[in-house]
Amino acid sequence: MKRQVCLAVLLHGGRFSWKYPGAKAEGDHDLEMYKSLARTAERGRFDIIFMADGYSTKDDGLGPEALRSMSTLVHFDPLTLLAVLSTVTSRIGLVCTGSTTYNEPYELARRFATLDHMSGGRAGWNVITSQMTSEALNFGYDGPLSTEARYARAREFLDVCHGLWDSWEDDAFPRDKTSGTYADPSRMHVLDHKGRFFKVRGPLNVARMPQGYPVICQAGESEEGREFAARSADMMYGKAASLEHGQAFYGPMKARLAKYGRAPDSLKIMPGLCCVVGRTQEEAQAKFDAVQATIGPVEARAFAVQFMGPDFDLDIDPEQPMPDLPTLNAIATRKRITMERDGRRLSLVGLGRWIAACMGHLTLIGTPSSIADEMERYIDEGGSDGFALMPHYLPGNLEDFVELVVPELQRRGRLRTEYTGTTLRDTLGLPRPPNRHAAGAGAHAAE
Amino acid sequence: MKRQVCLAVLLHGGRFSWKYPGAKAEGDHDLEMYKSLARTAERGRFDIIFMADGYSTKDDGLGPEALRSMSTLVHFDPLTLLAVLSTVTSRIGLVCTGSTTYNEPYELARRFATLDHMSGGRAGWNVITSQMTSEALNFGYDGPLSTEARYARAREFLDVCHGLWDSWEDDAFPRDKTSGTYADPSRMHVLDHKGRFFKVRGPLNVARMPQGYPVICQAGESEEGREFAARSADMMYGKAASLEHGQAFYGPMKARLAKYGRAPDSLKIMPGLCCVVGRTQEEAQAKFDAVQATIGPVEARAFAVQFMGPDFDLDIDPEQPMPDLPTLNAIATRKRITMERDGRRLSLVGLGRWIAACMGHLTLIGTPSSIADEMERYIDEGGSDGFALMPHYLPGNLEDFVELVVPELQRRGRLRTEYTGTTLRDTLGLPRPPNRHAAGAGAHAAE
Repeated sequence: MKRQVCLAVLLHGGRFSWKYPGAKAEGDHDLEMYKSLARTAERGRFDIIFMADGYSTKDDGLGPEALRSMSTLVHFDPLTLLAVLSTVTSRIGLVCTGSTTYNEPYELARRFATLDHMSGGRAGWNVITSQMTSEALNFGYDGPLSTEARYARAREFLDVCHGLWDSWEDDAFPRDKTSGTYADPSRMHVLDHKGRFFKVRGPLNVARMPQGYPVICQAGESEEGREFAARSADMMYGKAASLEHGQAFYGPMKARLAKYGRAPDSLKIMPGLCCVVGRTQEEAQAKFDAVQATIGPVEARAFAVQFMGPDFDLDIDPEQPMPDLPTLNAIATRKRITMERDGRRLSLVGLGRWIAACMGHLTLIGTPSSIADEMERYIDEGGSDGFALMPHYLPGNLEDFVELVVPELQRRGRLRTEYTGTTLRDTLGLPRPPNRHAAGAGAHAAE
Repeated sequence: MKRQVCLAVLLHGGRFSWKYPGAKAEGDHDLEMYKSLARTAERGRFDIIFMADGYSTKDDGLGPEALRSMSTLVHFDPLTLLAVLSTVTSRIGLVCTGSTTYNEPYELARRFATLDHMSGGRAGWNVITSQMTSEALNFGYDGPLSTEARYARAREFLDVCHGLWDSWEDDAFPRDKTSGTYADPSRMHVLDHKGRFFKVRGPLNVARMPQGYPVICQAGESEEGREFAARSADMMYGKAASLEHGQAFYGPMKARLAKYGRAPDSLKIMPGLCCVVGRTQEEAQAKFDAVQATIGPVEARAFAVQFMGPDFDLDIDPEQPMPDLPTLNAIATRKRITMERDGRRLSLVGLGRWIAACMGHLTLIGTPSSIADEMERYIDEGGSDGFALMPHYLPGNLEDFVELVVPELQRRGRLRTEYTGTTLRDTLGLPRPPNRHAAGAGAHAAE
């Protein structure tokens, strides 16, 4: 069998394009739209719907003019939303972000366990650390924790969660009316964790979940993030704007797994993808350009500065090509954003529009065939295991993908036509982790 | 119009009766059962489905033998569950417990706001403080906070939530594609709270919810709890095992509201109710007795000791009448548990069975007519505004109530036959609180 392409979709992508006539402007709080998108993604046989998250409006440094056009200020709590989306789908994975910086492991462990139970084993957790100042200010801090502290806390947080998820063995609840045995006390385990950040006794007050643990996702590309992923993640969201970038990340990242006794295929690497498809190249390009045109100069400039940092708050004509300064170019390289398009240096506004479209991720504009060609190249040449679609606008961009690209991938034998298993681990081809306390259980790789 | 009876139902009541042949033993993790119960309650035109919560297995001091029969060790995260139940109902209120002791206001505020948005304005929050040692140990503490600290933290927590819920005025999001105005910055408000327990900048990253604030519920009967309710609660769950007890609580509690400028009817008092209904008195009594008989002596004794405290761990024959000691009687009075039934002193096992059935709450065993009579007496004679049904076993006990008692209450003009409004505030007859920042808004009573 050919290598399969793993597919996730960010359900609140495309919010920069809310002014586009085909876009749903009420996307952030429109439950019916989310339900419809989830159904569409499942119809397209995606592995995962994915909800990002943050603990603030992220309005840091935005003036009133830029704020006015921002469609990213408010959104639903993602795990609560996924609980509802589990009711309109039956096979697709449900992954959302949960921060390890301002939460408590007991609380978050039971929320993900609940989602996994209620969805029949489809929950995934994108483990992040919160690094924005606006988030710190909502939780009693004056600024973000150090990178070292954030990742040390994240590691311990996840270890505690793994321990809590093993509180009860799979057969701990016979619920036998005849013998009167509801719970088998010998199958209950007290964690008694005492560490640098947390003291947690346990046991968790939720039974072991269908998947054992939720699928663990990691999205940071720092050295700390890569090491965290190598140790603990089942999937990884990243940036691979070109095949060469993808290969440079993919090979070394897979090689890191050996240190933790893990096989290369136990971590799925799925970089972001902005994909605009048309029946012809011209139709696709016209769709892309039409959405770009809805982003005004003030907000485009604000996007650029917000994404690239205060050094991009330049006193220049925002419509003229940006100066070719080493400091700016260095930032662009670090953020993996190209400052040229079609051989021409971008203006500040042009850069902002480009960032709005794809945040520097791989962008494919073309026909179903040309897009599938490029996706196959990534899969076959060690660039990625799949992609996380970042819709250019919603709902139409996802619908286009499912209508045009998905059948092409299926025709080429790269994507399932039906789901086979029931859980997200089944779908991704990942084994169910045994409970550490179960007879015959090997040590969990993350321990 | 006659005074109406407000009705809530605790959806995971009845778990002590899991061995009863008609009870669903898998109740704690059976999503389909919860969905069915929610539909049944809505069919019965209840105001509210209610989920309690706790942050531990609550196995404090239980030996393996008692643990074995306990059906209360595990359960779903209630808010995540209510999100799913919102999809199978359309009018009934969705209330769950959320602790102010180990959570952060930013996190909890947005979860309840999300539930309110997704359910079309049906969310309610039972504000509690966590006081069990087993809970403290799961959050880095060696024991519970003092009563003073817990309630001071709860007041500040709720104040912060109210402030965050007013971050955005109701008309803050025009989402106007023509003018390019997604958000109106003049309708956004930064909280900048700095208090004893919390520093929270805001704004919340969820738009103002349909109800303005969720319905606030309070369940403690301590002096601190009563004062908290008088200041901030829309409804109150309590204990009124007799009409006299109910009256002794109801009048003074309503009188407290004046201090905060509130009308007596702005707080609904709904004591717990265990209700076993039959077509005849004998049938009802036989149902009650059959469930009681499923509770074995070891677990009955464990219930008694767990509920009444370690002083009830007596070295006596557990089947003989308990000693008539002043210390024991004093505890029973404080816990509002009667130690006599039908004129006879209970044994330790009998007490445990009685506690398992009703936790000392009002217990009505009878025909639809006799039960409705007693409910009307409470409503008309200043005993309560309604009841929180604590099902004796599930699902049958709720079904019985909806099939037999509800039509009787409707026939007497005490209960709606159709919902009129759409939000829980509509259903309870409570006004929607204005945003404190809106032009013409009076100060919120809780501020």
